[in-house]
Amino acid sequence: MARFMDVHHDMQGITAEQLHQAHQADLAVEGEEGVHFESAWADPESGTVYCLSEGPSAEAVQRVHERTGHKAAEIHPVPLSV
Amino acid sequence: MARFMDVHHDMQGITAEQLHQAHQADLAVEGEEGVHFESAWADPESGTVYCLSEGPSAEAVQRVHERTGHKAAEIHPVPLSV
Repeated sequence: MARFMDVHHDMQGITAEQLHQAHQADLAVEGEEGVHFESAWADPESGTVYCLSEGPSAEAVQRVHERTGHKAAEIHPVPLSV
Repeated sequence: MARFMDVHHDMQGITAEQLHQAHQADLAVEGEEGVHFESAWADPESGTVYCLSEGPSAEAVQRVHERTGHKAAEIHPVPLSV
């Protein structure tokens, strides 16, 4: 298992409710890909959303996001944290 | 107070010890700017580092990073989180 930070760039105007719903959608299917989404942070003005997850690969993280309709623009492994 | 995610793009090869030292340097001066750095995550391969903080403004967050020698490339307010 590894940790990943993914980034979405096209979510201008996202609301708290929409972020919650998107996260819940990911949580509902993540287990089938061996992924867990821990947290997400959104900047509605620029449309940027950051998601922190754990999973077997970046591809598995992306599959969850694709299945729930919000493919990530970038996914970075983040093996280091403080 | 607001929450911010900032991004650094030029930290290829960063080690766990270097990330720890950079974070400790930020913690040592952040109070003078009313900022608190909560967490940071690093991808040594691409050189990307994400820092999550709270503070009065993006400018205050940047001042801390500038004072400790690692100016952020982007700073986004992230008022929404899950």
